[in-house]
Amino acid sequence: MNPAPVVILVAPQLAENIGMTARAMANFGLSDLRLVAPRNGWPKKGVREAASGATHVLDGATVHATLPEAIADLTCLFATTARERGQMKRVALPDAAMAETAGRIAHGERVGVMFGRERVGLTNDEVSLADAIVTFPVAADFPSLNLAQAVLLVGYEWRRAAGLARQPFTGATRAQPATREALLSLFMHLEARLDAAGFYPPEKREAIVRNMRDRLHRMSLTERDVRTFRGALKAIDGGAKHRPAEPV
Amino acid sequence: MNPAPVVILVAPQLAENIGMTARAMANFGLSDLRLVAPRNGWPKKGVREAASGATHVLDGATVHATLPEAIADLTCLFATTARERGQMKRVALPDAAMAETAGRIAHGERVGVMFGRERVGLTNDEVSLADAIVTFPVAADFPSLNLAQAVLLVGYEWRRAAGLARQPFTGATRAQPATREALLSLFMHLEARLDAAGFYPPEKREAIVRNMRDRLHRMSLTERDVRTFRGALKAIDGGAKHRPAEPV
Repeated sequence: MNPAPVVILVAPQLAENIGMTARAMANFGLSDLRLVAPRNGWPKKGVREAASGATHVLDGATVHATLPEAIADLTCLFATTARERGQMKRVALPDAAMAETAGRIAHGERVGVMFGRERVGLTNDEVSLADAIVTFPVAADFPSLNLAQAVLLVGYEWRRAAGLARQPFTGATRAQPATREALLSLFMHLEARLDAAGFYPPEKREAIVRNMRDRLHRMSLTERDVRTFRGALKAIDGGAKHRPAEPV
Repeated sequence: MNPAPVVILVAPQLAENIGMTARAMANFGLSDLRLVAPRNGWPKKGVREAASGATHVLDGATVHATLPEAIADLTCLFATTARERGQMKRVALPDAAMAETAGRIAHGERVGVMFGRERVGLTNDEVSLADAIVTFPVAADFPSLNLAQAVLLVGYEWRRAAGLARQPFTGATRAQPATREALLSLFMHLEARLDAAGFYPPEKREAIVRNMRDRLHRMSLTERDVRTFRGALKAIDGGAKHRPAEPV
């Protein structure tokens, strides 16, 4: 497993939050979970269900009596807070914090991110043990994220910063664009049909033809698209053969 | 309220998921929620509680019988999917999709993002109505995000792309760094004290002094820091006056 930041929950209380934190970590490839003095005991009833399959994260979680014990081996620690703390700490948004984390981890550092109690977050003393603060760019009129959502956003940004955010699939490159020859044949076929139908006002014909060719180019038609369009035109033509040409 | 992408939930079932979606939207400044054929009726018991204060999003939500009706006014539609759909659709990660969305919205377009059913997502027919697919850069061994988490990530990336992701506070600029004069005074005070204590091996003195000055520079000491350090040194000096100097 490649090195990744450690997630530290300080005095977490609800089984659901811890379980959903484990799941959010698993979603983005984090696995080192440390719990500091969980409220009302550990393990907790219901936490495995809330982890929805991410029980490997729970099984590997370590429990610590104090925060200094939980962070002893780390060389860099971020504290997540929503409010200014009156400390001269560097503050970063999650993307910048995780970009820094990726750099540090690439140099062999051990980096942790601390998350506080569900209702009141981290104490000022706990924040003072951190190198820097991470805060989330939430709307000022609705700033409250729950614990697992905060962990999710940090995990997401970690994955992006570590260059692990790759599209699992792409749709756009599965068929070759049509050759210029095929496109020109389509254009000429279509224009001949529209000429025969008297579609173009003579004084506007050149501009309309040019715009339509431009539009067809912008469709990035594949070979199959061109064949389909030409087949449709031929089918329409086939019908017209049995009717007198429209008067121009 | 500034224009922002529309969130479309297709056949959502659980009140908790819809409520948490509303909360995730409010966290990141989204407010236009459209529900297509909610399963088992609407409104749903428990949805307002799950919205945790984001009831304004629920109150403004519109309900539609069909997807085409829900998306009629949009000029661009993204479909969130985890699996490849065998369609030649452009695929983007959330950051690229929201960067594109921000550009389109700045040009007056109306952009929507579709999210599917809790268990099975969107149908292929529903995906085919979209301009492009958005997929999340989750770990391959644990790819499953719940509905509200997917909405949260899209909202987060929207806010970043729209230039709205600003740090609500900064900590780093609240006091002036110390002047060079103050720093030099500290250096000389410290070095004199260490000379008196016989701390430096003569052949290494220059290198040790230089390294220590370098380290003190890297601390980015403020005026107050320098005063505190000098006060501490003076207090230690005060004690030493009453003791004979250590033999060198």
